[in-house]
Amino acid sequence: MQKKFKKQILNRISYLSGHLKGVKKMVQNEEYCIDIIKQNKAVIAALKKINDLVLENHLNTCVTEAIRGESLKERKKKISELLEIFKNSNK
Amino acid sequence: MQKKFKKQILNRISYLSGHLKGVKKMVQNEEYCIDIIKQNKAVIAALKKINDLVLENHLNTCVTEAIRGESLKERKKKISELLEIFKNSNK
Amino acid sequence: MQKKFKKQILNRISYLSGHLKGVKKMVQNEEYCIDIIKQNKAVIAALKKINDLVLENHLNTCVTEAIRGESLKERKKKISELLEIFKNSNK
Amino acid sequence: MQKKFKKQILNRISYLSGHLKGVKKMVQNEEYCIDIIKQNKAVIAALKKINDLVLENHLNTCVTEAIRGESLKERKKKISELLEIFKNSNK
Repeated sequence: MQKKFKKQILNRISYLSGHLKGVKKMVQNEEYCIDIIKQNKAVIAALKKINDLVLENHLNTCVTEAIRGESLKERKKKISELLEIFKNSNK
Repeated sequence: MQKKFKKQILNRISYLSGHLKGVKKMVQNEEYCIDIIKQNKAVIAALKKINDLVLENHLNTCVTEAIRGESLKERKKKISELLEIFKNSNK
Repeated sequence: MQKKFKKQILNRISYLSGHLKGVKKMVQNEEYCIDIIKQNKAVIAALKKINDLVLENHLNTCVTEAIRGESLKERKKKISELLEIFKNSNK
Repeated sequence: MQKKFKKQILNRISYLSGHLKGVKKMVQNEEYCIDIIKQNKAVIAALKKINDLVLENHLNTCVTEAIRGESLKERKKKISELLEIFKNSNK
Protein backbone atom coordinates (compact mmCIF):
# COMPACT_ATOMS: atom_id res chain seq x y z
CA MET A 1 0.00 0.00 0.00
CA GLN A 2 1.35 3.41 -0.92
CA LYS A 3 2.49 5.26 2.19
CA LYS A 4 0.42 8.40 1.68
CA PHE A 5 -2.77 6.32 1.27
CA LYS A 6 -2.04 4.14 4.28
CA LYS A 7 -1.60 7.16 6.54
CA GLN A 8 -4.73 8.90 5.30
CA ILE A 9 -6.83 5.75 5.58
CA LEU A 10 -5.68 4.97 9.11
CA ASN A 11 -6.35 8.54 10.23
CA ARG A 12 -9.82 8.40 8.81
CA ILE A 13 -10.61 5.06 10.46
CA SER A 14 -9.45 6.36 13.84
CA TYR A 15 -11.64 9.43 13.48
CA LEU A 16 -14.52 7.19 12.47
CA SER A 17 -14.25 5.01 15.58
CA GLY A 18 -14.77 8.14 17.63
CA HIS A 19 -17.71 9.17 15.50
CA LEU A 20 -19.31 5.77 16.01
CA LYS A 21 -18.90 6.07 19.78
CA GLY A 22 -20.79 9.36 19.50
CA VAL A 23 -23.65 7.60 17.72
CA LYS A 24 -23.74 4.96 20.44
CA LYS A 25 -24.05 7.66 23.08
CA MET A 26 -26.89 9.27 21.12
CA VAL A 27 -28.76 5.97 21.14
CA GLN A 28 -28.10 5.44 24.85
CA ASN A 29 -29.47 8.94 25.54
CA GLU A 30 -32.44 8.21 23.25
CA GLU A 31 -31.84 11.30 21.17
CA TYR A 32 -34.09 12.18 18.25
CA CYS A 33 -34.17 9.31 15.70
CA ILE A 34 -33.71 11.55 12.67
CA ASP A 35 -30.53 12.97 14.21
CA ILE A 36 -29.21 9.47 14.87
CA ILE A 37 -29.96 8.45 11.28
CA LYS A 38 -28.13 11.51 9.97
CA GLN A 39 -25.06 10.75 12.08
CA ASN A 40 -25.05 7.17 10.84
CA LYS A 41 -25.26 8.45 7.29
CA ALA A 42 -22.23 10.64 7.96
CA VAL A 43 -20.32 7.58 9.17
CA ILE A 44 -21.40 5.69 6.04
CA ALA A 45 -20.23 8.55 3.81
CA ALA A 46 -16.87 8.53 5.58
CA LEU A 47 -16.49 4.78 5.06
CA LYS A 48 -17.24 5.21 1.37
CA LYS A 49 -14.60 7.90 1.17
CA ILE A 50 -12.14 5.45 2.74
CA ASN A 51 -13.07 2.87 0.12
CA ASP A 52 -12.43 5.44 -2.61
CA LEU A 53 -8.90 5.83 -1.25
CA VAL A 54 -8.31 2.09 -0.97
CA LEU A 55 -9.52 1.67 -4.53
CA GLU A 56 -7.30 4.49 -5.78
CA ASN A 57 -4.31 2.80 -4.18
CA HIS A 58 -5.38 -0.54 -5.66
CA LEU A 59 -5.70 0.84 -9.19
CA ASN A 60 -2.33 2.55 -8.96
CA THR A 61 -0.55 -0.54 -7.69
CA CYS A 62 -1.93 -4.08 -8.10
CA VAL A 63 -4.26 -3.39 -11.04
CA THR A 64 -1.67 -1.48 -13.02
CA GLU A 65 0.95 -4.16 -12.39
CA ALA A 66 -1.38 -6.99 -13.31
CA ILE A 67 -2.65 -5.37 -16.48
CA ARG A 68 0.89 -4.51 -17.57
CA GLY A 69 2.07 -7.99 -16.68
CA GLU A 70 2.19 -11.01 -18.93
CA SER A 71 -0.38 -13.23 -17.20
CA LEU A 72 -3.72 -13.01 -18.98
CA LYS A 73 -5.27 -14.93 -16.10
CA GLU A 74 -4.07 -12.38 -13.54
CA ARG A 75 -5.34 -9.55 -15.71
CA LYS A 76 -8.79 -11.11 -15.98
CA LYS A 77 -8.87 -11.68 -12.25
CA LYS A 78 -8.16 -8.02 -11.50
CA ILE A 79 -10.84 -6.86 -13.92
CA SER A 80 -13.46 -9.22 -12.55
CA GLU A 81 -12.68 -8.08 -8.99
CA LEU A 82 -13.18 -4.46 -10.05
CA LEU A 83 -16.50 -5.32 -11.66
CA GLU A 84 -17.66 -7.07 -8.52
CA ILE A 85 -16.76 -4.06 -6.37
CA PHE A 86 -18.50 -1.74 -8.81
CA LYS A 87 -21.66 -3.86 -8.94
CA ASN A 88 -21.80 -3.94 -5.19
CA SER A 89 -21.59 -0.18 -4.83
CA ASN A 90 -23.85 0.27 -7.79
CA LYS A 91 -26.87 -0.88 -5.78
CA MET B 1 -37.14 4.80 21.87
CA GLN B 2 -38.87 1.44 22.15
CA LYS B 3 -36.90 -0.87 24.43
CA LYS B 4 -36.53 -3.74 21.96
CA PHE B 5 -35.13 -1.40 19.31
CA LYS B 6 -32.74 0.31 21.69
CA LYS B 7 -31.23 -2.99 22.79
CA GLN B 8 -30.87 -4.32 19.24
CA ILE B 9 -29.34 -1.08 17.99
CA LEU B 10 -26.81 -0.85 20.82
CA ASN B 11 -25.77 -4.48 20.33
CA ARG B 12 -25.24 -3.89 16.66
CA ILE B 13 -23.18 -0.74 17.22
CA SER B 14 -20.95 -2.55 19.72
CA TYR B 15 -20.39 -5.37 17.27
CA LEU B 16 -19.64 -2.81 14.56
CA SER B 17 -16.95 -1.09 16.61
CA GLY B 18 -15.13 -4.41 16.77
CA HIS B 19 -15.58 -4.93 13.06
CA LEU B 20 -14.08 -1.50 12.36
CA LYS B 21 -11.06 -2.34 14.52
CA GLY B 22 -10.59 -5.40 12.34
CA VAL B 23 -10.57 -3.23 9.23
CA LYS B 24 -7.98 -0.96 10.82
CA LYS B 25 -5.75 -3.93 11.50
CA MET B 26 -6.14 -5.08 7.88
CA VAL B 27 -4.93 -1.67 6.70
CA GLN B 28 -2.03 -1.68 9.16
CA ASN B 29 -1.00 -5.12 7.87
CA GLU B 30 -1.43 -3.89 4.29
CA GLU B 31 -3.76 -6.72 3.38
CA TYR B 32 -5.21 -7.05 -0.12
CA CYS B 33 -7.14 -3.87 -1.06
CA ILE B 34 -10.16 -5.72 -2.44
CA ASP B 35 -10.53 -7.57 0.87
CA ILE B 36 -10.36 -4.28 2.79
CA ILE B 37 -13.00 -2.76 0.51
CA LYS B 38 -15.28 -5.75 1.06
CA GLN B 39 -14.95 -5.51 4.83
CA ASN B 40 -15.75 -1.79 4.69
CA LYS B 41 -18.81 -2.60 2.61
CA ALA B 42 -19.90 -5.09 5.27
CA VAL B 43 -19.60 -2.34 7.90
CA ILE B 44 -21.61 0.01 5.67
CA ALA B 45 -24.33 -2.61 5.21
CA ALA B 46 -24.48 -3.08 8.98
CA LEU B 47 -24.85 0.68 9.54
CA LYS B 48 -27.69 0.78 7.02
CA LYS B 49 -29.39 -2.06 8.85
CA ILE B 50 -29.09 -0.02 12.06
CA ASN B 51 -30.68 2.94 10.30
CA ASP B 52 -33.54 0.71 9.19
CA LEU B 53 -34.17 -0.13 12.84
CA VAL B 54 -33.95 3.50 13.97
CA LEU B 55 -36.38 4.47 11.24
CA GLU B 56 -38.77 1.67 12.17
CA ASN B 57 -38.77 2.91 15.75
CA HIS B 58 -39.26 6.48 14.54
CA LEU B 59 -42.25 5.60 12.33
CA ASN B 60 -43.87 3.62 15.14
CA THR B 61 -43.45 6.37 17.70
CA CYS B 62 -42.84 10.02 16.75
CA VAL B 63 -44.26 9.91 13.23
CA THR B 64 -47.42 8.08 14.24
CA GLU B 65 -47.98 10.45 17.15
CA ALA B 66 -47.38 13.55 15.06
CA ILE B 67 -49.61 12.44 12.20
CA ARG B 68 -52.37 11.46 14.61
CA GLY B 69 -51.94 14.71 16.49
CA GLU B 70 -53.74 17.96 15.87
CA SER B 71 -50.79 20.12 14.83
CA LEU B 72 -50.66 20.40 11.05
CA LYS B 73 -47.25 22.04 11.38
CA GLU B 74 -45.84 19.10 13.33
CA ARG B 75 -47.29 16.66 10.80
CA LYS B 76 -45.67 18.51 7.91
CA LYS B 77 -42.37 18.60 9.74
CA LYS B 78 -42.35 14.84 10.24
CA ILE B 79 -43.17 14.21 6.60
CA SER B 80 -40.51 16.57 5.33
CA GLU B 81 -37.90 14.93 7.59
CA LEU B 82 -38.83 11.52 6.18
CA LEU B 83 -38.50 12.83 2.63
CA GLU B 84 -35.08 14.24 3.41
CA ILE B 85 -33.90 10.92 4.85
CA PHE B 86 -35.29 9.07 1.85
CA LYS B 87 -33.67 11.42 -0.66
CA ASN B 88 -30.36 11.01 1.04
CA SER B 89 -30.44 7.24 0.94
CA ASN B 90 -31.88 7.34 -2.54
CA LYS B 91 -28.56 8.43 -4.01
CA MET C 1 -52.61 11.47 -6.70
CA GLN C 2 -52.37 15.19 -6.07
CA LYS C 3 -52.70 17.10 -9.36
CA LYS C 4 -49.46 19.08 -9.05
CA PHE C 5 -47.45 15.90 -8.42
CA LYS C 6 -49.09 14.00 -11.26
CA LYS C 7 -48.25 16.72 -13.76
CA GLN C 8 -44.65 17.06 -12.61
CA ILE C 9 -44.09 13.31 -12.58
CA LEU C 10 -45.54 12.79 -16.08
CA ASN C 11 -43.44 15.64 -17.47
CA ARG C 12 -40.32 14.15 -15.97
CA ILE C 13 -41.06 10.68 -17.33
CA SER C 14 -41.62 12.08 -20.84
CA TYR C 15 -38.34 13.92 -20.68
CA LEU C 16 -36.65 10.76 -19.45
CA SER C 17 -37.88 8.68 -22.38
CA GLY C 18 -36.12 11.11 -24.68
CA HIS C 19 -32.98 10.96 -22.57
CA LEU C 20 -32.98 7.16 -22.77
CA LYS C 21 -33.29 7.32 -26.56
CA GLY C 22 -30.19 9.48 -26.52
CA VAL C 23 -28.30 6.85 -24.55
CA LYS C 24 -29.39 4.20 -27.06
CA LYS C 25 -28.01 6.29 -29.89
CA MET C 26 -24.73 6.70 -28.00
CA VAL C 27 -24.42 2.92 -27.72
CA GLN C 28 -25.31 2.42 -31.39
CA ASN C 29 -22.61 4.95 -32.34
CA GLU C 30 -20.19 3.21 -29.96
CA GLU C 31 -19.38 6.42 -28.13
CA TYR C 32 -16.92 6.49 -25.25
CA CYS C 33 -18.02 4.08 -22.49
CA ILE C 34 -17.43 6.52 -19.66
CA ASP C 35 -19.73 9.04 -21.36
CA ILE C 36 -22.43 6.39 -21.75
CA ILE C 37 -22.11 5.43 -18.09
CA LYS C 38 -22.44 9.09 -17.07
CA GLN C 39 -25.59 9.54 -19.15
CA ASN C 40 -27.09 6.41 -17.63
CA LYS C 41 -26.29 7.77 -14.20
CA ALA C 42 -28.11 10.98 -15.09
CA VAL C 43 -31.17 8.92 -16.07
CA ILE C 44 -30.93 7.01 -12.78
CA ALA C 45 -30.73 10.26 -10.81
CA ALA C 46 -33.82 11.54 -12.64
CA LEU C 47 -35.74 8.36 -11.82
CA LYS C 48 -34.81 8.73 -8.17
CA LYS C 49 -36.06 12.30 -8.23
CA ILE C 50 -39.36 11.00 -9.64
CA ASN C 51 -39.55 8.49 -6.81
CA ASP C 52 -39.01 11.30 -4.32
CA LEU C 53 -42.06 13.05 -5.77
CA VAL C 54 -44.18 9.89 -5.75
CA LEU C 55 -43.20 9.29 -2.14
CA GLU C 56 -43.99 12.88 -1.17
CA ASN C 57 -47.44 12.50 -2.68
CA HIS C 58 -47.87 9.15 -0.91
CA LEU C 59 -46.92 10.54 2.50
CA ASN C 60 -49.25 13.50 2.06
CA THR C 61 -52.20 11.38 1.04
CA CYS C 62 -52.43 7.63 1.75
CA VAL C 63 -49.99 7.49 4.65
CA THR C 64 -51.49 10.46 6.44
CA GLU C 65 -55.02 9.11 5.97
CA ALA C 66 -54.09 5.64 7.14
CA ILE C 67 -52.20 6.82 10.19
CA ARG C 68 -55.01 9.20 11.14
CA GLY C 69 -57.57 6.46 10.51
CA GLU C 70 -58.91 3.98 13.01
CA SER C 71 -57.57 0.76 11.51
CA LEU C 72 -54.42 -0.33 13.31
CA LYS C 73 -53.89 -2.94 10.62
CA GLU C 74 -53.94 -0.34 7.85
CA ARG C 75 -51.56 1.86 9.81
CA LYS C 76 -49.10 -1.00 10.27
CA LYS C 77 -49.31 -1.84 6.60
CA LYS C 78 -48.41 1.70 5.55
CA ILE C 79 -45.46 1.79 7.91
CA SER C 80 -44.12 -1.56 6.78
CA GLU C 81 -44.40 -0.50 3.14
CA LEU C 82 -42.40 2.64 3.90
CA LEU C 83 -39.73 0.59 5.64
CA GLU C 84 -39.48 -1.73 2.68
CA ILE C 85 -39.05 1.20 0.27
CA PHE C 86 -36.44 2.74 2.54
CA LYS C 87 -34.50 -0.50 2.92
CA ASN C 88 -34.47 -0.97 -0.82
CA SER C 89 -33.08 2.48 -1.51
CA ASN C 90 -30.78 2.18 1.43
CA LYS C 91 -28.57 -0.30 -0.42
CA MET D 1 -17.36 -1.73 -28.24
CA GLN D 2 -17.23 -5.52 -28.19
CA LYS D 3 -20.04 -6.95 -30.33
CA LYS D 4 -21.54 -9.18 -27.63
CA PHE D 5 -21.76 -6.28 -25.19
CA LYS D 6 -23.25 -3.92 -27.76
CA LYS D 7 -26.04 -6.33 -28.61
CA GLN D 8 -26.87 -7.09 -24.98
CA ILE D 9 -26.85 -3.43 -24.01
CA LEU D 10 -29.10 -2.36 -26.90
CA ASN D 11 -31.56 -5.14 -26.14
CA ARG D 12 -31.71 -4.10 -22.52
CA ILE D 13 -32.27 -0.43 -23.39
CA SER D 14 -35.11 -1.32 -25.76
CA TYR D 15 -36.77 -3.41 -23.10
CA LEU D 16 -36.30 -0.57 -20.63
CA SER D 17 -38.05 1.95 -22.85
CA GLY D 18 -41.10 -0.28 -22.78
CA HIS D 19 -40.84 -0.65 -19.03
CA LEU D 20 -40.74 3.13 -18.64
CA LYS D 21 -43.86 3.49 -20.78
CA GLY D 22 -45.55 1.11 -18.37
CA VAL D 23 -44.59 3.33 -15.43
CA LYS D 24 -46.00 6.36 -17.27
CA LYS D 25 -49.30 4.55 -17.74
CA MET D 26 -49.36 3.66 -14.04
CA VAL D 27 -48.99 7.33 -13.14
CA GLN D 28 -51.67 8.35 -15.66
CA ASN D 29 -54.03 5.80 -14.11
CA GLU D 30 -53.06 7.01 -10.63
CA GLU D 31 -52.13 3.53 -9.45
CA TYR D 32 -50.89 2.91 -5.93
CA CYS D 33 -47.78 5.02 -5.21
CA ILE D 34 -45.81 2.20 -3.63
CA ASP D 35 -46.31 0.09 -6.76
CA ILE D 36 -45.10 2.98 -8.94
CA ILE D 37 -42.02 3.42 -6.75
CA LYS D 38 -41.25 -0.30 -7.00
CA GLN D 39 -41.52 -0.25 -10.80
CA ASN D 40 -39.21 2.76 -10.94
CA LYS D 41 -36.74 0.92 -8.75
CA ALA D 42 -36.84 -2.00 -11.17
CA VAL D 43 -36.01 0.39 -14.02
CA ILE D 44 -33.14 1.84 -11.96
CA ALA D 45 -31.79 -1.65 -11.24
CA ALA D 46 -31.92 -2.45 -14.96
CA LEU D 47 -30.01 0.74 -15.80
CA LYS D 48 -27.35 -0.17 -13.27
CA LYS D 49 -27.04 -3.60 -14.83
CA ILE D 50 -26.52 -1.87 -18.19
CA ASN D 51 -23.78 0.25 -16.65
CA ASP D 52 -22.12 -2.89 -15.31
CA LEU D 53 -21.97 -4.21 -18.87
CA VAL D 54 -20.66 -0.93 -20.29
CA LEU D 55 -17.99 -0.89 -17.60
CA GLU D 56 -17.04 -4.49 -18.26
CA ASN D 57 -16.57 -3.67 -21.94
CA HIS D 58 -14.59 -0.55 -21.00
CA LEU D 59 -12.22 -2.44 -18.69
CA ASN D 60 -11.65 -5.13 -21.30
CA THR D 61 -10.90 -2.68 -24.07
CA CYS D 62 -9.88 0.95 -23.44
CA VAL D 63 -8.60 0.53 -19.89
CA THR D 64 -6.54 -2.54 -20.69
CA GLU D 65 -5.07 -0.87 -23.78
CA ALA D 66 -4.25 2.33 -21.95
CA ILE D 67 -2.66 0.63 -18.98
CA ARG D 68 -0.61 -1.65 -21.23
CA GLY D 69 0.33 1.33 -23.40
CA GLU D 70 3.35 3.56 -23.02
CA SER D 71 1.63 6.84 -22.19
CA LEU D 72 1.70 7.45 -18.44
CA LYS D 73 -0.69 10.34 -18.97
CA GLU D 74 -3.26 8.15 -20.70
CA ARG D 75 -2.94 5.54 -17.97
CA LYS D 76 -3.55 8.11 -15.26
CA LYS D 77 -6.54 9.45 -17.14
CA LYS D 78 -8.17 6.02 -17.34
CA ILE D 79 -7.62 5.40 -13.64
CA SER D 80 -9.02 8.76 -12.62
CA GLU D 81 -12.10 8.20 -14.78
CA LEU D 82 -12.68 4.86 -13.08
CA LEU D 83 -12.36 6.47 -9.67
CA GLU D 84 -14.87 9.12 -10.62
CA ILE D 85 -17.38 6.51 -11.81
CA PHE D 86 -16.85 4.50 -8.65
CA LYS D 87 -17.28 7.52 -6.35
CA ASN D 88 -20.48 8.44 -8.11
CA SER D 89 -22.00 5.01 -7.68
CA ASN D 90 -20.58 4.78 -4.23
CA LYS D 91 -23.07 7.32 -2.88
